[in-house]
Amino acid sequence: MTANSEPLDAHEESYAGVGLTFCRVPFARGPEDLAGSDVAVVGAPFDLGTSFRPGTRFGPRAIRSAEDVGGPSARPHLELGLDPFAHLRVVDIGDAPVGPTISACHAGLYRAVGEILRAGAVPIVLGGDHSLSLPVMRALSDHLGPDGYSVIHFDTHADTAIYESGVTTEHAAPFSRAVNEGYVRGTNLIQIGLRGAWPFPAEFDWMRDNGIRWHSMDQVEERGLTAIVDEVIAAAGTRPRTYLTVDIDVLDPAFAPGTGTPEPGGLSTRELLRAVRRIGAALDLCAMDVVEVSPPYDPSRITALAAHRVVLEALSAIALRRSGRQPRPERPSG
Amino acid sequence: MTANSEPLDAHEESYAGVGLTFCRVPFARGPEDLAGSDVAVVGAPFDLGTSFRPGTRFGPRAIRSAEDVGGPSARPHLELGLDPFAHLRVVDIGDAPVGPTISACHAGLYRAVGEILRAGAVPIVLGGDHSLSLPVMRALSDHLGPDGYSVIHFDTHADTAIYESGVTTEHAAPFSRAVNEGYVRGTNLIQIGLRGAWPFPAEFDWMRDNGIRWHSMDQVEERGLTAIVDEVIAAAGTRPRTYLTVDIDVLDPAFAPGTGTPEPGGLSTRELLRAVRRIGAALDLCAMDVVEVSPPYDPSRITALAAHRVVLEALSAIALRRSGRQPRPERPSG
Amino acid sequence: MTANSEPLDAHEESYAGVGLTFCRVPFARGPEDLAGSDVAVVGAPFDLGTSFRPGTRFGPRAIRSAEDVGGPSARPHLELGLDPFAHLRVVDIGDAPVGPTISACHAGLYRAVGEILRAGAVPIVLGGDHSLSLPVMRALSDHLGPDGYSVIHFDTHADTAIYESGVTTEHAAPFSRAVNEGYVRGTNLIQIGLRGAWPFPAEFDWMRDNGIRWHSMDQVEERGLTAIVDEVIAAAGTRPRTYLTVDIDVLDPAFAPGTGTPEPGGLSTRELLRAVRRIGAALDLCAMDVVEVSPPYDPSRITALAAHRVVLEALSAIALRRSGRQPRPERPSG
Amino acid sequence: MTANSEPLDAHEESYAGVGLTFCRVPFARGPEDLAGSDVAVVGAPFDLGTSFRPGTRFGPRAIRSAEDVGGPSARPHLELGLDPFAHLRVVDIGDAPVGPTISACHAGLYRAVGEILRAGAVPIVLGGDHSLSLPVMRALSDHLGPDGYSVIHFDTHADTAIYESGVTTEHAAPFSRAVNEGYVRGTNLIQIGLRGAWPFPAEFDWMRDNGIRWHSMDQVEERGLTAIVDEVIAAAGTRPRTYLTVDIDVLDPAFAPGTGTPEPGGLSTRELLRAVRRIGAALDLCAMDVVEVSPPYDPSRITALAAHRVVLEALSAIALRRSGRQPRPERPSG
Amino acid sequence: MTANSEPLDAHEESYAGVGLTFCRVPFARGPEDLAGSDVAVVGAPFDLGTSFRPGTRFGPRAIRSAEDVGGPSARPHLELGLDPFAHLRVVDIGDAPVGPTISACHAGLYRAVGEILRAGAVPIVLGGDHSLSLPVMRALSDHLGPDGYSVIHFDTHADTAIYESGVTTEHAAPFSRAVNEGYVRGTNLIQIGLRGAWPFPAEFDWMRDNGIRWHSMDQVEERGLTAIVDEVIAAAGTRPRTYLTVDIDVLDPAFAPGTGTPEPGGLSTRELLRAVRRIGAALDLCAMDVVEVSPPYDPSRITALAAHRVVLEALSAIALRRSGRQPRPERPSG
Amino acid sequence: MTANSEPLDAHEESYAGVGLTFCRVPFARGPEDLAGSDVAVVGAPFDLGTSFRPGTRFGPRAIRSAEDVGGPSARPHLELGLDPFAHLRVVDIGDAPVGPTISACHAGLYRAVGEILRAGAVPIVLGGDHSLSLPVMRALSDHLGPDGYSVIHFDTHADTAIYESGVTTEHAAPFSRAVNEGYVRGTNLIQIGLRGAWPFPAEFDWMRDNGIRWHSMDQVEERGLTAIVDEVIAAAGTRPRTYLTVDIDVLDPAFAPGTGTPEPGGLSTRELLRAVRRIGAALDLCAMDVVEVSPPYDPSRITALAAHRVVLEALSAIALRRSGRQPRPERPSG
Repeated sequence: MTANSEPLDAHEESYAGVGLTFCRVPFARGPEDLAGSDVAVVGAPFDLGTSFRPGTRFGPRAIRSAEDVGGPSARPHLELGLDPFAHLRVVDIGDAPVGPTISACHAGLYRAVGEILRAGAVPIVLGGDHSLSLPVMRALSDHLGPDGYSVIHFDTHADTAIYESGVTTEHAAPFSRAVNEGYVRGTNLIQIGLRGAWPFPAEFDWMRDNGIRWHSMDQVEERGLTAIVDEVIAAAGTRPRTYLTVDIDVLDPAFAPGTGTPEPGGLSTRELLRAVRRIGAALDLCAMDVVEVSPPYDPSRITALAAHRVVLEALSAIALRRSGRQPRPERPSG
Repeated sequence: MTANSEPLDAHEESYAGVGLTFCRVPFARGPEDLAGSDVAVVGAPFDLGTSFRPGTRFGPRAIRSAEDVGGPSARPHLELGLDPFAHLRVVDIGDAPVGPTISACHAGLYRAVGEILRAGAVPIVLGGDHSLSLPVMRALSDHLGPDGYSVIHFDTHADTAIYESGVTTEHAAPFSRAVNEGYVRGTNLIQIGLRGAWPFPAEFDWMRDNGIRWHSMDQVEERGLTAIVDEVIAAAGTRPRTYLTVDIDVLDPAFAPGTGTPEPGGLSTRELLRAVRRIGAALDLCAMDVVEVSPPYDPSRITALAAHRVVLEALSAIALRRSGRQPRPERPSG
Repeated sequence: MTANSEPLDAHEESYAGVGLTFCRVPFARGPEDLAGSDVAVVGAPFDLGTSFRPGTRFGPRAIRSAEDVGGPSARPHLELGLDPFAHLRVVDIGDAPVGPTISACHAGLYRAVGEILRAGAVPIVLGGDHSLSLPVMRALSDHLGPDGYSVIHFDTHADTAIYESGVTTEHAAPFSRAVNEGYVRGTNLIQIGLRGAWPFPAEFDWMRDNGIRWHSMDQVEERGLTAIVDEVIAAAGTRPRTYLTVDIDVLDPAFAPGTGTPEPGGLSTRELLRAVRRIGAALDLCAMDVVEVSPPYDPSRITALAAHRVVLEALSAIALRRSGRQPRPERPSG
Repeated sequence: MTANSEPLDAHEESYAGVGLTFCRVPFARGPEDLAGSDVAVVGAPFDLGTSFRPGTRFGPRAIRSAEDVGGPSARPHLELGLDPFAHLRVVDIGDAPVGPTISACHAGLYRAVGEILRAGAVPIVLGGDHSLSLPVMRALSDHLGPDGYSVIHFDTHADTAIYESGVTTEHAAPFSRAVNEGYVRGTNLIQIGLRGAWPFPAEFDWMRDNGIRWHSMDQVEERGLTAIVDEVIAAAGTRPRTYLTVDIDVLDPAFAPGTGTPEPGGLSTRELLRAVRRIGAALDLCAMDVVEVSPPYDPSRITALAAHRVVLEALSAIALRRSGRQPRPERPSG
Repeated sequence: MTANSEPLDAHEESYAGVGLTFCRVPFARGPEDLAGSDVAVVGAPFDLGTSFRPGTRFGPRAIRSAEDVGGPSARPHLELGLDPFAHLRVVDIGDAPVGPTISACHAGLYRAVGEILRAGAVPIVLGGDHSLSLPVMRALSDHLGPDGYSVIHFDTHADTAIYESGVTTEHAAPFSRAVNEGYVRGTNLIQIGLRGAWPFPAEFDWMRDNGIRWHSMDQVEERGLTAIVDEVIAAAGTRPRTYLTVDIDVLDPAFAPGTGTPEPGGLSTRELLRAVRRIGAALDLCAMDVVEVSPPYDPSRITALAAHRVVLEALSAIALRRSGRQPRPERPSG
Repeated sequence: MTANSEPLDAHEESYAGVGLTFCRVPFARGPEDLAGSDVAVVGAPFDLGTSFRPGTRFGPRAIRSAEDVGGPSARPHLELGLDPFAHLRVVDIGDAPVGPTISACHAGLYRAVGEILRAGAVPIVLGGDHSLSLPVMRALSDHLGPDGYSVIHFDTHADTAIYESGVTTEHAAPFSRAVNEGYVRGTNLIQIGLRGAWPFPAEFDWMRDNGIRWHSMDQVEERGLTAIVDEVIAAAGTRPRTYLTVDIDVLDPAFAPGTGTPEPGGLSTRELLRAVRRIGAALDLCAMDVVEVSPPYDPSRITALAAHRVVLEALSAIALRRSGRQPRPERPSG
């Protein structure tokens, strides 16, 4: 890590400073700054894959500036008893280059994620629309092979649209396209939180044909998210590593109004944060993202804050797993 | 269905088009367009019955435009395995005529609901303030007799105010007035979700005297909404048909800030949607409404969206019931 | 005009009704409904040409629903002493078809505008991003020839970007591309309201080379808009007809916050409305549009309302011109 | 003034305190507290006369709490060189009683204004919808006779609707009804700021027939507000006293978004404040109101603040006039 | 209670009236008005102790005006079957004096709370930032001794910052400072709702060293809030009286966006209200506060409303406890 | 300029990138990076000097991120015909250190401004509350002597409060205190835009006694801002250099709602931008600031954008002056 990539500024107050890296971690300008990192945050500020309400192009900035503590990046986790930034070398490489077409945006992110993976770090992508999962999986496939990782996917929508060729890059289709293009095995893909009036039966048929598994919100309601996460961890654990992708619209609109296609009846943030923590501690994450935060629809900014905490929870879990020790929750004496 | 009532336009994008029928179903201009319909949506854009914050006059438009999918009205239900629009003939007759007094508004809705009922369809009213339940019940009483239907009423407030004659038409009194005027039997009325500091003891006494039943939020918290809904279905099922009226303020303000008299401590959308689905599938609905959505207080529009989904959930349940088959949830293979 | 295209509903209240045509004029479903029309409104709900903040895809709906009067479409103009809807046959054809690419959106609008022109009506396009002027000018060129019309263009930005081929369709380049593709002569193009740090010198050179004329906000401030409009009318009047295109960001952000690239220091609505009226009365408009209204950034909805009034002012002026009489302002007696 | 009506609390900070009288003047609970007052503020928190967007029932509270200075009610006027609260005894009597019908609201305000007039004070009414001018003029007519006062009326709309009897009390008709019911002479009524597509020709005819005078926004633009106000003062000054009624929608929506029927193209606050000051200094005001402030549409609260300043400007002008001296503007030495 | 402290006005409508006491209880101007009161509400409109987003200085006014019922202060509790205002003499003394420094603010509140305690009433403080608990505990210690009361503290943050002397008065440190300055015993302090990345380990060590107990959100999730509240009541009950302090940020941001340091993953309002009711009924409250409501971040005002209901729930519980009878929930007959 | 201070990232899109320097100029980390700079931007994110609505601590970040163009910092000025970034070496040093007291904040800014001045650059401070002018003038006095510079001050408020010692550092008093402490001569201070009910007569007397000059909004209205700016330039030009301080509340709230103490009746942005340009071109600026932008009250972000343009206009003017040439406005040929 060179001097260049030190924290941009170190003021005490969170609203101060020109540098908006995630949690004020060092800024990594290029491959040399990535060396030795455990985790690298990267923004994907595009929304050309959006069908309804655009705006998630402003998501990475909103997530990075959602922080409410300021100061040096110490964030000890109350339930785990460890500070991810003390255990992990986390850098922020800024935003992947974007272009005027969704293909150009994908190409830029594909290269950035590949570079992070080759440096041995875990990429954490701040979206951006969910189409970004396609280049992430392409890079993962290059790195781990299409059967080398499982995908745990929190979302309202299955994002497995069956479209004509030519327009399949949009945010409704990253997973169908990734399977079709051979970047991931359908049998390694597990979804949680489905609800609403989409996908259509033909898409569910396609999903079944490809061995994709999912857990709808009704199943969450009936069995509890804890039991489902147990099962998901077991299933995902059959592959060496796991890609965790969180569409913020898996949350109920009360918890995440700032998204493009909100769907009532979703998870609470409380449920989601615990699930992310458990997954990150149990499985070896090879990549992660949080997508579809749309600031123009987030007047109280609670959606960006929830996304920020999803990332922080994952970082803490990764740190715990790598530390090799058990959680040491802060508890009163006696 | 005449050519006149075809979808106004059929663009793919939900934000396009001049026609704002519910889910882009056909627009029915008059009695002849109603023939053969199973369900008819009608707006009731008035709020002159409001005591505190007006604005629900803009509710019907907000609910109709809350849709996030666009395109043709196919909405397959993930948990039921059927598309309500494939099973039911649903039309939207636009808004009932409104006038400068609450009485004139009621008269217009009474006529519109009566016309729908005579055509053999189920009216679904988009409010508007809750006083609209009075003309709905008057029309139901004409059609089914005052003992021919039960009422399941989701609400924070019992809406059974005991006022002087002359001002009893407002949104706090539709149910007391309907009982007093003989449009419904008190023993057929069941309320869910009561909380807060109203009604007053005298009104509760009146409710007990008239055999009205209710379940407060504390009871929901203690017993769970599932058990209560079981009991409500059993009780309502003693009448041939059921009128379901949903005041959106039964939801906690986190889920429904856009309403005139929000009361903390309410249901989540997740709870409400499942309850509506179960009621619609178990009982023969003769009418339904969703009321008190107030767009000026709904900056993120999540309240109108929740109301939209309440209607869609009911439509799906009606379709299931009429199809005569069991739910076929979309589940992974194996 | 067939029965199909009657007003969708005729309620007194503006917040009621499922049909959102502009000022509740008849809805024209196809070419046959256009016959005999003087003006046809068409929406262009796309923003894929946007560089910064998207959202103007929701513009047409917001402009149509900005109306505050309701009822039948009578709008007598106080200063002109005539009602445009009494003098003109105005219809609304809904929105032009949109597609997943900006090219597809342009193709749909090109066809719709061409159809209107061939029916002998004046198209008024509700945007949508400013790239829509490209297909409008292409259709005008087909109809009138590239030298058959002048363009009066109100805007902060010259929209004459010099880009590589392939990406020149976006909202910064409609005018450079239209000149380059031969849809309009640069010498027939006149711009009003330029300010800020764009275009760059190379683009100004290109504009000079092509004979484009413009009036910056500084010139407006120094000479007054009235004097400039006099000059613009004289210049534009050298061609038989005139296309008026109004980017709502020509207004100061105080008057039009709801736009994608606001620039402080602009016109007031008072100035703009009078200018539009004078232009519409003095010149024979062959087409008009109002673009770049972005509802997500318009919490008080004053931007969509201003755009609505720009259209109404133009309609009134067209009516006056066609009536052949002088303005008869409503004034007190004596 | 009894001890009861002392300032409710005297904290330094404007955001503190339970008492929200206008500028923290004494609260007058009843007739005895009015004795010796020069001006009495009264709220009229009703909006049942509203046709489009309700909400001005919350106007009085918003105007009173728009104050940004806090502390004791000293407000020296920079251009007049005097503090209205040092020269005038101003009290706030709270809000007039409101009821469930517009008639009941009017009756309550009529009594309150009459009581203030009989105590020899000038009533300043904080609206509330513009229908409140009807009971104000009824009370003025009782007190001064229908020819004893002129009316200067700032508004976008003439508010002279010609409706059927029975519904003429709403906010579009106070002036036509007041003339028809004999509370004011049409020849004593002067309006400033008219624009938009209403009133209709029939109403303008009625206005001419009754000798009402007006100045449209076009005339303001052409002649300047200063010249028009000169003329208005001369005309109004033919009656002994003057009632000044300010509909906040006379301002452009940029300056006053928080109102029910905004109309682009209006006055700036800068123009309005100077006009109010000149009128109050030149004429003997017998009553004043500021109406149609609608807080739900005023997210930045600038509309309520503008209304507050309109009242403060009038108070300063009244004080100047009663002091008998010339303005002594604060100017640098030398 | 003197005439001075009667309700300021008694209009039916909640949006009317210049007096904004809590639930329109009498305003108590000084010590003589406090005599005989059971509970005295006092505002603490300061936020100089805030580290991140200020604005809670506007909290007391927002909480008092969040009421949606209006009229006389009757608020019968549906689950308890009693009206707190019928059983308790509640007054509102307005806001404690504030000054330009946090010390001055604290001094003013300390005196006000002391005065209330000496009059035998329970102070209920409306914040304001959480640093206000320091002067509350100082006053409680004067009155009851540092071991004479326990503290039940709902909060995301432990507020036990260990700072250098001189800056320890801010909102992150009231409890560490109160323990250090001897106003309360650490062993009597119990916290509920902790989550997020603060306090740091050193602070937790200090907390353990001082015998402070706490229950994190994870423990709430695992054991349920009911079980935890049972335990908290048992623990707190070892002291004669209990101070209940509720930081509104203990709620999830979905339920309370309007606060300075929101933290996802918190309680629902439904959980909090029931917990407050149970605590108030089981223990003898000596003081209470609700803090950190920040209106600028509360566009839908649901946070202030939740805080209002927290107070109302506590009042109802106090009334029940003092009545000596069991809850008599309103239930249907039969 | 070292590599360290290169632009943080160079993406095309303005919403991308972790570095938020003003217009993406290089970030200067310390004195060595300042060498050779012409202008250095510095943030002052504090608002502890605020009396009414805090929030301007978030101002610097909002101003920096208000930019709508993105990409490299080329901003050619249309009216001047030059790009400030091509003529000036502009850096951004981030934010001055802030502390828990207003004194600590002032000390940090005083040091930062002094360092910039000693490096020979012009400091441009992004506020923060207006109390920051006190440390700026203290640093200017160190550098130029108290008679070595004039002050041109745009503001609603004179900010010359006469308070007791100890609390005179707040945002109402920077100019009285600077005069009293000898940092500036009163005769060198000129204010523009005063309006409203403050300062009080005693403060105006003090201002006259100290030779301070001012121009109220009434004078602007009567004489036009152009004439006044002519006079101000002549007066300020009697000193070698000029400090320009712009309180954004000099704008009318329509143009700048996002400020702590808005006052209706102010300048338009159009007026202000031209005035700033003329001043910067005519006089040798030694320092500049723009203060009191308060993002929580700026939902459409137009206030931060206006502030951004004030800075950009000043930079362009400085560049013109230093270039020694005349403006070359971009004008059409012919």
